[in-house]
Amino acid sequence: MPNYKLHYFNGRGRAEISRLILAASGVNYEDVRVNDWPKTKSDAPVGQLPYIEIDGLKLPQSLSIARYLAREYNLVGKNNLDAAKADAIVDTCIDLMTGFYQKVFLVTDIAEKEVALKKFLSDDAIKGLENVEKLAKQFGSKGFSVGKSLTWADLFIHEITYSLMNYQDNLLDNFQVLKQIREAVESNENIAKYLKNRPVTPF
Amino acid sequence: MPNYKLHYFNGRGRAEISRLILAASGVNYEDVRVNDWPKTKSDAPVGQLPYIEIDGLKLPQSLSIARYLAREYNLVGKNNLDAAKADAIVDTCIDLMTGFYQKVFLVTDIAEKEVALKKFLSDDAIKGLENVEKLAKQFGSKGFSVGKSLTWADLFIHEITYSLMNYQDNLLDNFQVLKQIREAVESNENIAKYLKNRPVTPF
Repeated sequence: MPNYKLHYFNGRGRAEISRLILAASGVNYEDVRVNDWPKTKSDAPVGQLPYIEIDGLKLPQSLSIARYLAREYNLVGKNNLDAAKADAIVDTCIDLMTGFYQKVFLVTDIAEKEVALKKFLSDDAIKGLENVEKLAKQFGSKGFSVGKSLTWADLFIHEITYSLMNYQDNLLDNFQVLKQIREAVESNENIAKYLKNRPVTPF
Repeated sequence: MPNYKLHYFNGRGRAEISRLILAASGVNYEDVRVNDWPKTKSDAPVGQLPYIEIDGLKLPQSLSIARYLAREYNLVGKNNLDAAKADAIVDTCIDLMTGFYQKVFLVTDIAEKEVALKKFLSDDAIKGLENVEKLAKQFGSKGFSVGKSLTWADLFIHEITYSLMNYQDNLLDNFQVLKQIREAVESNENIAKYLKNRPVTPF
C-alpha cells in the first residue's frame, strides 16, 4: 500500500470525501491538518488545499484525489458506465454545494446570511437534492445510488446531506431514496466507526 | 459501438471537450445542437446541458460525460495514477474557466466587461495557466501533459487556450509547455480535420 499524506485545513470541507473513502476502505494514511497555511501554501502543487502525497508525489484537486482513491479501492462501480454514473451524481452534488458556497457561505453580513440560508434551504437545496435523488433512483437500487453496492457517490451524498442537515435536520423528509442511502452508508462498519470518532468541526 | 447522441447548445462551451474526444477517437455520434431549450429542458436529466444519450441512457454533467468517453477510447493515461493526473489538470483548467465565467462572462455592462476582461487576461488567466503548465511539466513530457501519449487533458488544454486566445492571441508567449501541447494536439490527424471543419461559434 502506498504511503498517503492528505493535506487539508482542520475541517471536513473538500477533503472529507477522500477521508470517507479511505475510512470505508480501511486504509491507513496521515491526515495532515494544516494550521499554518500562509507559511505552507508554496508546498501545495497549485497553491490550494487539499492535496495528497502518494509516495511523495503531490496530486492536487479534491475530486481528482477522491476519484483516484475510489478507483484504487473499488468504490467507483463495476464498469466504466457505472463509474460515469457515480461521477455524474458527485458533480450534481457539487453543483448544489457550489450554490451553497456562493449564495450563503460567502455572505459576510450576519442578517443577510440568515436570509440567504433560509432561502437556500427552502429553494436551491430542494432543487439540488431533487436532481441528486432523481439520478440515484434511476442509476441505483435500495440504499445505493449506483448499481447494487457502495460507491463514492453514496459517501458524497452522505457528506453533503450531513453538512446541510446541520442547518435543518428534517431536510430529507421528502427524499426517501437519499435517506436510504444515508442509512446504508452509516451501516457500513468502517464508516460508522469513522463517523463516531472523526474530529467535530463546523464545516 | 454504442449509439451516442450529444445534446448541447450551438456552441463549444461545456460540450466541446467531449466532441474533441470523439473526434480524436474517430467515433461517429449525433451532435444535437439544441435551439429550443425552454421546450426541451424537461428532457434533460437534471435540467442542464450537455447530456449524452448512450444507447438511450441519459447521462448528465459535462466532465462525467467527457471522462466516460475518454476512458472508453483510451485517452485517460495508462493507469489509475495517470488518470488522476489528467483529472487534476482538467480540474485546474476548470478553475481557470470558472474564474473567466464569473468575472467576465457574467458581467453585462459593456464598459465594465472590457475592464474585467483586461484584468482577467493580465492576472487571473496568467496565474491559472501557470498552474496548468506547472502540472503538465511535472506530469508529462514533450507535447503531452500526462505521460508520453495523448490524453483528454491535452484536448482540454487546447480547448481552453483556444477560447482565451480568441481574446489575446499572444497569451501563451511565455508558456512553452502549453504551446508544445497545443502543437501536438493539432498535429493529430483526426483533430486537425475536426478543427478545420467544426462550426465556428463565439463561445
